Formats: sequence, C-alpha cells, structure tokens
Amino acid sequence: MNLHNYLQEKAASIEDALDRILAEGDTEPSILNEAMRYSVFAGGKRLRPILTIAAAEAVGGREEDVMTAACAIELIHTYSLIHDDLPAMDDDDYRRGRPTNHKVYGEALAILAGDALLTKAFEILAGCSVPGTAGRLMLRVIGEIAEAAGARGMVGGQTLDILSEGKAVDARTLFYIHKNKTGALLRASVRTGAILAGAGEEELTALTSFAEEFGLLFQITDDILNVVGDSSKMGKPVGTDAQRAKATYPALYGLDGARKMAREGKERALAALDSFDSKADPLRLLVSYLLEREK
Amino acid sequence: MNLHNYLQEKAASIEDALDRILAEGDTEPSILNEAMRYSVFAGGKRLRPILTIAAAEAVGGREEDVMTAACAIELIHTYSLIHDDLPAMDDDDYRRGRPTNHKVYGEALAILAGDALLTKAFEILAGCSVPGTAGRLMLRVIGEIAEAAGARGMVGGQTLDILSEGKAVDARTLFYIHKNKTGALLRASVRTGAILAGAGEEELTALTSFAEEFGLLFQITDDILNVVGDSSKMGKPVGTDAQRAKATYPALYGLDGARKMAREGKERALAALDSFDSKADPLRLLVSYLLEREK
Repeated sequence: MNLHNYLQEKAASIEDALDRILAEGDTEPSILNEAMRYSVFAGGKRLRPILTIAAAEAVGGREEDVMTAACAIELIHTYSLIHDDLPAMDDDDYRRGRPTNHKVYGEALAILAGDALLTKAFEILAGCSVPGTAGRLMLRVIGEIAEAAGARGMVGGQTLDILSEGKAVDARTLFYIHKNKTGALLRASVRTGAILAGAGEEELTALTSFAEEFGLLFQITDDILNVVGDSSKMGKPVGTDAQRAKATYPALYGLDGARKMAREGKERALAALDSFDSKADPLRLLVSYLLEREK
Repeated sequence: MNLHNYLQEKAASIEDALDRILAEGDTEPSILNEAMRYSVFAGGKRLRPILTIAAAEAVGGREEDVMTAACAIELIHTYSLIHDDLPAMDDDDYRRGRPTNHKVYGEALAILAGDALLTKAFEILAGCSVPGTAGRLMLRVIGEIAEAAGARGMVGGQTLDILSEGKAVDARTLFYIHKNKTGALLRASVRTGAILAGAGEEELTALTSFAEEFGLLFQITDDILNVVGDSSKMGKPVGTDAQRAKATYPALYGLDGARKMAREGKERALAALDSFDSKADPLRLLVSYLLEREK
C-alpha cells in the first residue's frame, strides 16, 4: 500500500467530517465559529484522527464507525494548541505558517474558541454511539479521552512543561511531561479506534503498547526537528526549544543519542504489531512516516 | 419543609462528593490540583447541583443516583468562572471575597485549571452511568450538558457578552446573552436530574419550562443585586455593571421594571410546577430564595 495516498484520502474524509461538525452558522455570534474553524482548518496533519481510523481498521473496523470519535480527538488537539499558544502560556505568534488564534481574534476569543472546541468534542462523542453497543463502549471511550486530555494527562503535562521552562530538567521529568502532554492523547486516539471497533483485550493491549511507543517516537522526532528542521517546511521557527532552555531529548541526550532512541523506538513500535495482519500496515507505515517527516 | 436546612444538607453532601472527586494527589504537579480545588471550594452556593438533585427528587429519584452528574455541572460552572475572571476576559480580581484564581496562581495555571475542570466533568459523567439504564440516559445527559456549556450555550453567551461590553445593547441581545451565558447550564442542571431519575416526557417538559423561568429570574435578581446589593455580603463589589456599561435588566428596564419582571417570572416558574406534588417543594422554595437572596 501507498502511505501517501492513504494519508491524503483519510485526511480528506476527516476534513469533510470536521466541516460538517463545525458547520458555519452553528454559533451566534458567528465570530466564535469563525475562530474555532480558523484553527481547526489550519493545515494540520490530522495524525490523531488518522491513528484512530487506522487502529479501527487494524482490528477489522470501518472508518465510518469511528469518524466522529476521530474528529472529537482532533477538536481536543486543536483546543490544546490554541491555549498553549496564548501569551500567558508559550506565547507563540505563529503556528503552521499562520498567525496563532489569539493574534487574529484576540486573547478572549482564543480562550473561548478553545473552550468551545473542547466542549464540542464531548457533545459529538455523546451523540455518535455505534448502534448495537448500548452506549457502553462510547461511555468507556469518553472516559478514556477525558482522562487522557485532563489533569492526569495532557493538561497535567502542559502544566509541568510550563513550570519547568528555564529550569534544569532531568530525564524522569522529561519523560513524564511528554508521556502526558502529547503521549496521553495519542494513546487515547489509538485506543478509541480499537475499542469502538470491538477489539479483543489482547488486541487492545498490543495496540496500547504500539501507541505508547508511537507517542514517545513522535516526541523525540518532534524535538529533533526543532533542532535540524527546515522552518519554511514546518511553518514555524526552529531552534526555539534551545532558546527557551526547554527540556528536550536532544538537549538531554545529544542529537545522536536522540536519533538512536528514535531508531530503537521504531523497532519496539513495530514489534508491538507482530500479531496483526496486513490490515495494520497503515499503522506500521505511520511509524516510518514519523522518522522521515520534515514537519 | 425548611429550605435553609435543605440547602445546608445538600450543600454538605455536594462538598463531600466534590472533595472525593478532586482528591488531593490526583494530579502531578500537585499545584494544578491545588488551583482546581481553590476555585471549587471557594464558598459557592452550589445552586446548580442542588437544582439537579431537587429536580431528580421532584420526579421520585434519589440524591445518590444523580450526585456525580450534579458535581460535574458544578465543575463546569467553576471552570467558567475561572476563565471569565481572566485579565483577557472580565479581568476580575475578586470573587466571593477572595482573590480570583489567576491572582493567586497566575494566568497560565488559571487557564489550565479551568481546562482541567471542564475535562474532569466529562470524565466523571462517563464513569457514573446509573445501573440498568445501559448508558443511554448518561450519553443523552452528556450531550445535553456539552451543548449547554458550549458554543451554542454558555461559551456563546460569554462571547457575545464580551463583544457587547461598552456598547448599547437592545433587549433581544440581552435576553440572548443571559439565555446562553447562565440560562443554558441552569436548564441543563434541572434536566440532568430529571432525565437520570427517569422523568416521563410530560414531567421533563414541565421541569424544562420551570428551569427556563428560573434561569431568567436568576439573571434578573443577579443584575438587581449588582445595583442594590451589600458588597460585604456578596464578597464582590457592586455597581460594577453600571461602571462597565454592561447590558443588564435594571439598565434596560429601570430598577422598578426589573423588580416587576422578577415577580412575574416567579409566578410563571411556580405555575410550571403545578402538576407536581410536595416532592417538588424544594424547587418551589428555591424560587423564593432567588427573590430574597442577598448574595
């Protein structure tokens, strides 16, 4: 299979679904909807919803049964970017080559657009339970996504990240930050697809291991890109982590050390998929994609 | 029955439940948990969760079956207060006689604590479905709460409120702001209790009418208090709406006009409960409580 085509096809379906979910005119005042859409349709890679779909497919599920849940996770991811970029947080002016939400709409609307996206995610999750499952699976998924996004997950990781800025950070803290700030939602993306597609417990355990390795790999490669990436391809400046004395894998282990960790992480991620057939190929290819990505 | 005792008893049960939900040590870093608890345990009246419980009792339900859902709504209410108080929003330094969250913990942590409380609400809702209902009722409730809290509800109302500050606002806009900013979550509070307690459609319709009148009355009396209230009892300054040229009922209809609207709203709220027996007495007394409250 061709990963490039797969990613393009899935991203297009996801764009369509997000467009319906955030229909214009859905909010009054309309500028709130506009601010929400500005960041949702800002050229993201849709990595998380694609993981949800690919995980569902790996256990024999269908894209259409998990599309709404996949989009909910993308809304949560987008809200987190809007809030992270705020002046009180990372104070970023650009993301993906465009001015950040608060630079366009102001801080108040950026906070509110983020709040609304987070809330919308749970609204659509509640409305999309798969027929025949009596709602139990969807409640489980809502609980897992909320836990991954909340104080014991993404928000907790972001909190520690902000509190750590400019301080010397040890390896344990670095792992903790990334496991929560980015790892938890990536893990939930995979598990959501698998759970809703009716994965057995063994399948779910294996996919969870895959997701945890994938999350680690994602962060390592993201940190490496911040050192060696091409800012014109990435749509954001590079070298910012070093300027801010942020805790990163290259900062702690050196560039070569981080690259070695990435290669080892790739092997472990692929090993976690050993018991799956070719339906898991998109997940396998996504691992290589992480290592080769330029943005 | 004695409303004062009822309110005290319910508020005490709610405090206990919230204390378990936000157990200390639940987050790392612990300062996030501390910031969340600071605003949740800031002496609120617990009006929304009490409405949820009273609505459940009105249709024969039990407090314990709706307590977690009631607490989820209080977490959402608290998050909205933290974000509304931010410098980029209403820029309030005091609430209930204490410094606001961002004055104590800084803007970044206040934003994150709000985000975490909103997310926690959905986590506990997903985990508390009433046995025997197969999760369907809880999914319905999650959907309703999310819609009430989101862009078409509370966040939308707050957006319009902020955009309207300092502008001349007509009656239609004023109604729209309050219907969404405060009315939607009060309505969801009542409906959540009724739905989870198994209310029939007629009961639910009547309680929804009650909730809408209650929400209007809440806002009118809140606006009146901002004009004539005692700031030492309220724990916040009065007269602030007029200073900010905010759209309020007294500003549009005069103090006497607003008081007349409150009396008429009270009659309509009580009329909506006509078909209920004495189990709805707490709801009836809460209407009088609104009119007589001093904070």
